[in-house]
Amino acid sequence: MDFDIPKDIILCHEQEKGRAFVKKIWGKRATFVCTIGNTETGKIPGISAAGANPAITDYTPAADVELLYYGWCKCINGVPVTPNGIPTPGVITMSAIKMANMPVFAVNGGVNVRPNAPYFELDGKAGRDIRTGKAVDDPLKVFERAVVLGEQLSSVSKFLVIGESIAGGTTTALGVLTAMGYQAHGRVSSSLPANPHDLKSKVVQEGIASSKATVEEMRRDPMAAVAAVGDPMMPAAAGVIVGASRRIPVLMAGGTQMAAVLAVVKGMEPSALEKVAIGTTRWIATDKCSSISDLVRQIGDVPILAANLDFSKSRFEGLRIYETGIVKEGVGAGGSAIAAFTSSKGAIDAKSLLREIDSNYERLMSRKS
Amino acid sequence: MDFDIPKDIILCHEQEKGRAFVKKIWGKRATFVCTIGNTETGKIPGISAAGANPAITDYTPAADVELLYYGWCKCINGVPVTPNGIPTPGVITMSAIKMANMPVFAVNGGVNVRPNAPYFELDGKAGRDIRTGKAVDDPLKVFERAVVLGEQLSSVSKFLVIGESIAGGTTTALGVLTAMGYQAHGRVSSSLPANPHDLKSKVVQEGIASSKATVEEMRRDPMAAVAAVGDPMMPAAAGVIVGASRRIPVLMAGGTQMAAVLAVVKGMEPSALEKVAIGTTRWIATDKCSSISDLVRQIGDVPILAANLDFSKSRFEGLRIYETGIVKEGVGAGGSAIAAFTSSKGAIDAKSLLREIDSNYERLMSRKS
Repeated sequence: MDFDIPKDIILCHEQEKGRAFVKKIWGKRATFVCTIGNTETGKIPGISAAGANPAITDYTPAADVELLYYGWCKCINGVPVTPNGIPTPGVITMSAIKMANMPVFAVNGGVNVRPNAPYFELDGKAGRDIRTGKAVDDPLKVFERAVVLGEQLSSVSKFLVIGESIAGGTTTALGVLTAMGYQAHGRVSSSLPANPHDLKSKVVQEGIASSKATVEEMRRDPMAAVAAVGDPMMPAAAGVIVGASRRIPVLMAGGTQMAAVLAVVKGMEPSALEKVAIGTTRWIATDKCSSISDLVRQIGDVPILAANLDFSKSRFEGLRIYETGIVKEGVGAGGSAIAAFTSSKGAIDAKSLLREIDSNYERLMSRKS
Repeated sequence: MDFDIPKDIILCHEQEKGRAFVKKIWGKRATFVCTIGNTETGKIPGISAAGANPAITDYTPAADVELLYYGWCKCINGVPVTPNGIPTPGVITMSAIKMANMPVFAVNGGVNVRPNAPYFELDGKAGRDIRTGKAVDDPLKVFERAVVLGEQLSSVSKFLVIGESIAGGTTTALGVLTAMGYQAHGRVSSSLPANPHDLKSKVVQEGIASSKATVEEMRRDPMAAVAAVGDPMMPAAAGVIVGASRRIPVLMAGGTQMAAVLAVVKGMEPSALEKVAIGTTRWIATDKCSSISDLVRQIGDVPILAANLDFSKSRFEGLRIYETGIVKEGVGAGGSAIAAFTSSKGAIDAKSLLREIDSNYERLMSRKS
């Protein structure tokens, strides 16, 4: 039987596998998991736009989780914004979750600021500046607990969508991909208008040089790479993906950060790659300043799906500006949109999702004042 | 259509409602939740048998959770035992969960020792000695987060079984029931061979006298009662029950401690009582030294079901001794057994469950050496 992919899901990479993945999840309710972490790397000036200023990036993941649970943030006023006031992509995720009535679970990889909401604790710690070469303590412990968690979640879910919120995450993604031997320079994305590739690579090279692990160790062992130049979201997300994918399909919701998580997953349990896809936004898929497909191609035959979101018709300037390529992705925005489309069998599309996003944005902005 | 209750489920109290509850959950897979906490109350000499000595009771809940997740404990050697070496009722729960293939989630109400496993964090703290009259900090925060968690769990589950592991829990149960105006003296159960009713009441009276809350405040507000003379398991369990029971049936798995949780639930959301039942063991239901039905009758028309476990035919002395009325209940043993019977539509019964318990006990004892 033929199967038509809905028009608002773009098959960007490994199209046949992408089509098969969409078919497999069609009509199935998604469980959404948001993995959070903090890292000092995100506070290096010029690295991240996931917060109005570097110090406040510690609050961004907690605020994003609160937004998903309650429809508004508790630990900050308003919602997380970039230095220019552009709202978190969590507004997209929250809208998709609400429309598709998805259960949400937060997973703490290691944070300084805890959400005012229930979350899964894996006893991980916030990450250090990767320039120290010792970014994450005991990632294997967090990974192993996350595997158990992924197995538990898979036994109460038909399919899993897993996103992340961590500031500075594309820099640590570059770190882990580089440490594991992939060609990643110039290929990771950025929430900033101008992608600071050279700054990121400089930070990564400094971290790799400082690390006590050898180049060979980091290539062979993803946990060594994460411990040196990764972030605490990675072992948590990778573990949940490995555990859940033993039983159900998993949509890895994110941009180039998820390529780094994919590399970790491959290194820990290669067979998991057959059960996963990456789900992102059109803004990532068409980004001229990064290339998620160039990264994924180096790792494995994993499909990339993109939600064909178009904010040019939004009622609000703060959302229309997404079309200029700022922010682009985060909090599993693209993947949650895809899951809303597939779980509703196309009853939800990019247009109706934008109406919901607009209305949530309006409510949140009026609350802020 | 008539409905026959399986022979291994005893309808102890509110029989018609109990029958209706069993019918409602018949054939439905259960999600098991284990709520844990620590309290200094459990360390008062002579109060609890939930550990070989008072100091080690801090490890008991974490070890119980590990037992449920992995089939063995990580934070201690062997399994939690009473001072006389009788194994934790968690062995019953673990066996029921394994046979019925139930998903398990741990919820941390407030502990000193964290399990080596994933768990839901509600940011509660371990409890003080209730003689201080300030046993639990900010139970309302924990309760509210637990409500959100219960709602999330209900959206991925058909029905919920919720148990507890906390040492000293019957003393804090007596505390909260007394503070809320119920006649509880001499009615709470004990894991010890001789129930120290007078010691418990003395501890409770001291706590109530020390509390800054008035008698009237504690009668009216369950959170005031818990804050004064309760334990950190209570607001967590009550919150999950309130949140989940808005959508699905909830089996409150435990002995007289669950009567205290029921009183808290009633005070916070009275309508929840229509969706819950208490599930316990025959050892509690027939205990001459306590009366769960006397307690529940004072609170509301809530059915009590008991698993007709009979360990007299066990291959092991350490389990046969349960028939003398020691330990009796804990870690949701009775409720998990009931859920194994109902979810399997009677394919699992007390006899086959005992075979599984015996075999797990044998494995654990040989591992211990």
